[in-house]
Amino acid sequence: MTNKMEYNAPTEVKELEIISTYHLEEEAKKVVPKGGFDYMSGGSGKEWTLKRNDEAFFHKGICPRVLANVEFPETKTSILGQELSVPFIMAPISAHGLAHESKEAGTAKGIAEFGGSIMSISAYSGATFEEIDEGLNGNNRWFQIYMSKDETMNKNILDEAKKDGASAIILTADATLSGNRERDLSNKFVYPFGMPIVSRYLTGSGKNMSLNNIYAQSKQKIEPDDVRFIKDYSGLPVFVKGIQCPEDALLAIGAGADGVWVSNHGGRQLDHAPGSFETLESIAKAVAGKVPIVFDSGIRRGEHIFKALASGADIVAIGRPVLFGLALGGHKGVTSVFKYFENDLKRVMQLAGTQTIKDVKNTQLIDLK
Amino acid sequence: MTNKMEYNAPTEVKELEIISTYHLEEEAKKVVPKGGFDYMSGGSGKEWTLKRNDEAFFHKGICPRVLANVEFPETKTSILGQELSVPFIMAPISAHGLAHESKEAGTAKGIAEFGGSIMSISAYSGATFEEIDEGLNGNNRWFQIYMSKDETMNKNILDEAKKDGASAIILTADATLSGNRERDLSNKFVYPFGMPIVSRYLTGSGKNMSLNNIYAQSKQKIEPDDVRFIKDYSGLPVFVKGIQCPEDALLAIGAGADGVWVSNHGGRQLDHAPGSFETLESIAKAVAGKVPIVFDSGIRRGEHIFKALASGADIVAIGRPVLFGLALGGHKGVTSVFKYFENDLKRVMQLAGTQTIKDVKNTQLIDLK
Amino acid sequence: MTNKMEYNAPTEVKELEIISTYHLEEEAKKVVPKGGFDYMSGGSGKEWTLKRNDEAFFHKGICPRVLANVEFPETKTSILGQELSVPFIMAPISAHGLAHESKEAGTAKGIAEFGGSIMSISAYSGATFEEIDEGLNGNNRWFQIYMSKDETMNKNILDEAKKDGASAIILTADATLSGNRERDLSNKFVYPFGMPIVSRYLTGSGKNMSLNNIYAQSKQKIEPDDVRFIKDYSGLPVFVKGIQCPEDALLAIGAGADGVWVSNHGGRQLDHAPGSFETLESIAKAVAGKVPIVFDSGIRRGEHIFKALASGADIVAIGRPVLFGLALGGHKGVTSVFKYFENDLKRVMQLAGTQTIKDVKNTQLIDLK
Amino acid sequence: MTNKMEYNAPTEVKELEIISTYHLEEEAKKVVPKGGFDYMSGGSGKEWTLKRNDEAFFHKGICPRVLANVEFPETKTSILGQELSVPFIMAPISAHGLAHESKEAGTAKGIAEFGGSIMSISAYSGATFEEIDEGLNGNNRWFQIYMSKDETMNKNILDEAKKDGASAIILTADATLSGNRERDLSNKFVYPFGMPIVSRYLTGSGKNMSLNNIYAQSKQKIEPDDVRFIKDYSGLPVFVKGIQCPEDALLAIGAGADGVWVSNHGGRQLDHAPGSFETLESIAKAVAGKVPIVFDSGIRRGEHIFKALASGADIVAIGRPVLFGLALGGHKGVTSVFKYFENDLKRVMQLAGTQTIKDVKNTQLIDLK
Repeated sequence: MTNKMEYNAPTEVKELEIISTYHLEEEAKKVVPKGGFDYMSGGSGKEWTLKRNDEAFFHKGICPRVLANVEFPETKTSILGQELSVPFIMAPISAHGLAHESKEAGTAKGIAEFGGSIMSISAYSGATFEEIDEGLNGNNRWFQIYMSKDETMNKNILDEAKKDGASAIILTADATLSGNRERDLSNKFVYPFGMPIVSRYLTGSGKNMSLNNIYAQSKQKIEPDDVRFIKDYSGLPVFVKGIQCPEDALLAIGAGADGVWVSNHGGRQLDHAPGSFETLESIAKAVAGKVPIVFDSGIRRGEHIFKALASGADIVAIGRPVLFGLALGGHKGVTSVFKYFENDLKRVMQLAGTQTIKDVKNTQLIDLK
Repeated sequence: MTNKMEYNAPTEVKELEIISTYHLEEEAKKVVPKGGFDYMSGGSGKEWTLKRNDEAFFHKGICPRVLANVEFPETKTSILGQELSVPFIMAPISAHGLAHESKEAGTAKGIAEFGGSIMSISAYSGATFEEIDEGLNGNNRWFQIYMSKDETMNKNILDEAKKDGASAIILTADATLSGNRERDLSNKFVYPFGMPIVSRYLTGSGKNMSLNNIYAQSKQKIEPDDVRFIKDYSGLPVFVKGIQCPEDALLAIGAGADGVWVSNHGGRQLDHAPGSFETLESIAKAVAGKVPIVFDSGIRRGEHIFKALASGADIVAIGRPVLFGLALGGHKGVTSVFKYFENDLKRVMQLAGTQTIKDVKNTQLIDLK
Repeated sequence: MTNKMEYNAPTEVKELEIISTYHLEEEAKKVVPKGGFDYMSGGSGKEWTLKRNDEAFFHKGICPRVLANVEFPETKTSILGQELSVPFIMAPISAHGLAHESKEAGTAKGIAEFGGSIMSISAYSGATFEEIDEGLNGNNRWFQIYMSKDETMNKNILDEAKKDGASAIILTADATLSGNRERDLSNKFVYPFGMPIVSRYLTGSGKNMSLNNIYAQSKQKIEPDDVRFIKDYSGLPVFVKGIQCPEDALLAIGAGADGVWVSNHGGRQLDHAPGSFETLESIAKAVAGKVPIVFDSGIRRGEHIFKALASGADIVAIGRPVLFGLALGGHKGVTSVFKYFENDLKRVMQLAGTQTIKDVKNTQLIDLK
Repeated sequence: MTNKMEYNAPTEVKELEIISTYHLEEEAKKVVPKGGFDYMSGGSGKEWTLKRNDEAFFHKGICPRVLANVEFPETKTSILGQELSVPFIMAPISAHGLAHESKEAGTAKGIAEFGGSIMSISAYSGATFEEIDEGLNGNNRWFQIYMSKDETMNKNILDEAKKDGASAIILTADATLSGNRERDLSNKFVYPFGMPIVSRYLTGSGKNMSLNNIYAQSKQKIEPDDVRFIKDYSGLPVFVKGIQCPEDALLAIGAGADGVWVSNHGGRQLDHAPGSFETLESIAKAVAGKVPIVFDSGIRRGEHIFKALASGADIVAIGRPVLFGLALGGHKGVTSVFKYFENDLKRVMQLAGTQTIKDVKNTQLIDLK
């Protein structure tokens, strides 16, 4: 039980030699307090969707193309006119402080030192904008919003995010209440620290509150008008995050969304939902290039990034592995994780015979039995 | 071996904090005597159909719909003009006394205190109508019949059920003899107490009798005329329980059944039968709304209820999880189980973007690979 | 290693209470010497086909039919004009002496005492015709032949089988040499006793010979002419055993076979062959009722018999489970196994709503995902 | 860690009794130093493709044909006009010295003593041409090339291979950089000895170098022109190895390749690639007999050889099992492995009713569910 007990987050700062992000998870489990680790790594219900997020990638195979004349593949790309050195960014995740004492500031610093990617700042951050800014040191950032039931508060938060320099807003639409997090229920998990960004609309700071409690205080009724409101009020591009079917993708685009964010919240919300990867192809077909697609939920390897891009994603977002890197090595661990993905993706691109991200996106995957 | 030994059923009465009904089963296993627990939780043969009942739900996925403007989903519905606060009721199960000393009276009381649902009273109840009535306290009830070979006795039982206030009769058609209950054979299981309702047509009270023995004394030849007889004699609506294919559904309707009850008896009768859920869609298509459909066999989560309704069921019936709740907390445990399902279903409805049961029923599930 | 050591076969004679034939196998493992048990229960290579024989039954489901007005199902049937009380017979298996000191005579006696079935006598029997006759006590019998390379010896063996009263000859065509029995190789298994029927054409009696050695001395080149020869010479009906595809079924029929015996030798010959059950439907379609079909390889339950009959078999043959019964209870154990299958089949027939074997054969199974 | 420590390769020379090549692997694990064993037996990433190479064979079944009049099947065949006693040859594998002190010379000697097959000499051999020649004793050999970035060096190597008597060149096209060998990373594996053939273009001899390092010094940009260059310069037939899709097969043929070598490098390069066997049929269809096809990646049994030939391969190449035989028995172990495959294939051919390799190639496999 983490309940109201002191929470001792890891503090080490070091570069990591990464064999795989699965090993990273095993190592992180050894240093992160159980309540925090289970919160980070767990899913909802039976965790079927969590596992399926990983397994669904094996519905498709990558054919090695061996006469493609490829050398030193290029991973640079762009989204919404923003240049990226790699086709992956940080997913918005709450409460990085569970992983490391440096909280979101550590993650931000690690990403900034890697360079060429984007930090997504969660509304449920445990660090303040100011703390994160120090880590980011001018690096590009997007802001993820959980809306309040009170429109004024939403405006205040958007004002603050915009002032902080967010170049896009991510509206998380799939978490209007907490998924059935059985591990957290078993652990009687509550957040060991506050959430300064949304604390203005919480009764309480977030500290010692359960996930159920926090989500219940956010807005439940999310609809296309919310997309329009955020876009109009902030003047920033808006991604709708949590899209898992073509219908919602079209609704979002119809409401003015600048991007579709395919995700099932890392298997943490609706269990018995399909694996996120197996929803991507049909959504991409419906979107038909009208807006860019961000994909998350299950990215653990370069092969996953490759398959997501080949199935219609423009970039992917990475969540848990970054937190495990943060837990094990602070901001340097975060940079190590980003470098791992960059190297792994380049190797996959080389072996698959693809020189550029455009080549990857034009690759035909193989349906597996 | 439970054989002719004293049976010490649990006695505790308390509310339960339920993580999942699977955990509930593990906990119940610790407090219920082995013979009784194996009887309750076991299936027939290899228990393939028992496991398939759970696994078959994963043939379909639920797509989270995230822009649906849903808040505080409504679970109320009705069947045969009877109002329900939730789309689930108690399945008819024999011998609740194996789980708790309060027997069916405890279950009945728990359901009555939850309110808005229905108690199904099994002909193989270990409690008398009078005992159950005390628990039910006026709550709605249906009566499930195992027919005698002697028509007069059937009339007597129907008279009594009607007098007791049953608002429908459930004809169990799939248990004309005992399934191949290998666990019970290993345990040499016999019922540790009598069955007052059917004891009039048993040689013996039911006490110290094996399942094989008891079933063998019931009527084997069940046919459409039995449906007509019950309906005509009782004047009550009749459900035919145990339907697993469109042909039997149509036969039942042709014989005047007021409802089709899709079930494989919780995997306890014919092993190697399909999972109950995988039979539902084709049956619902054949029934085509002519009569309502009740579904059981495998309901353990809100997701299961959701999928059954989206596949054509009007309501579902829940069996074993209620008995496990009864074992762990008496009537209060039963109420806790009902509340668990209500909360879990509401969460799933919210995350799936469905405000009402009608919305759930109109949901298109996703075929999974 | 059983090699050249004294072999102590079980000797107990008793009726068995059978929970399942899988339990029977576990029990037999405890009393049969390892070399003998591995020989009996093992398959070839990875034992993939051995396992698939069991798993393939789950490609199809049995729908419980619940309004079928069935009581006391009838299991009697006939094949080639020979009346049977049950649709299953003894499969031809070598070396029963590995299981029990009473050898094939024990099996024969157990079958005779059950009544209404058929004993298949293997050419690789460890008992003489005379010993088996004493057990059979006039019961119907078929003779299975492994042919010699020497036509005269084949004539002698057929003469002897005919004189012994065989009412049909089974030509095993799928074992022209030994399958890749890795367990036997590990155990350096050799037969601990001779094979009196075929010893006339072996160099050596069969005692202390490996399976490889014995098969190598039999005839390899099996073709349609062999079917014709046996039929013409013996004047008895001939089954061709080992058929796994429509082409071979038609070749056999073209050569005058009186019956097709679908089998993959219990997964003991060609590993990576399909499960026997999954080959049955297409063969039955090709045979189209021209001759009867016997099915074996994998029958362990009443559900298996039901599915085989519903897929085109006229009767099935049971092998290993009978040997396990023999090991545990001598001839009484054999009778217990036959009774188990009779009871289990009747239960399945009742629950599936089938009164007669004809009803079973007319049943449409359900394709499972 | 094998890093810079003395490496004690096995030294025993003896014939092997082989139960299966899977057992062989287990036994080899006991005698080969961990770093070397993991390098030999491991794959890349999650080792999904490595496992899939084995499992994919079960997508197809072999039907036993039992009336085919077969005896003493013939395994002789030819490729590019070169006669073979068996349809399998040695796959090109680097660093045999990890398995046995006799290095490639031991393998070569074992193959020569078996006779009628082909030794593939890897450019990453730990032995010199001269050492291998002594073992080969005139036996047929092919040479596998990893190209240098420097054309002159490639010419030198080809000159030397040709002078050594290579009758074909194998261009490995799927290993332009190292796969993600997680086991090697964990072990910090480096080669414990040099690579005399390619050392001319390495910085360092190969000794104490990691796989990453060695591959990085080879040529990455492989394209059809390289096929033309090798063919023109050497005047020898060229196989392009690593083909996994019809497109690359056609590119290779278009560039003048004399044969297509279907392989995924034993699951060591691009993980998440399909199993090699599941790519074969479509490639063979595209090749349409224009050039011969060699297949590797996953051959462990006679059944695998049979299925590969029946799916379009002309011959197969065997890798790891030979190394395991080398580890356990030196050159005699290698001969034992070749004899094992010959015997196992003959048994499969007999049981499948095929007299010749042509019959095998004309066999229709069965699609399995």
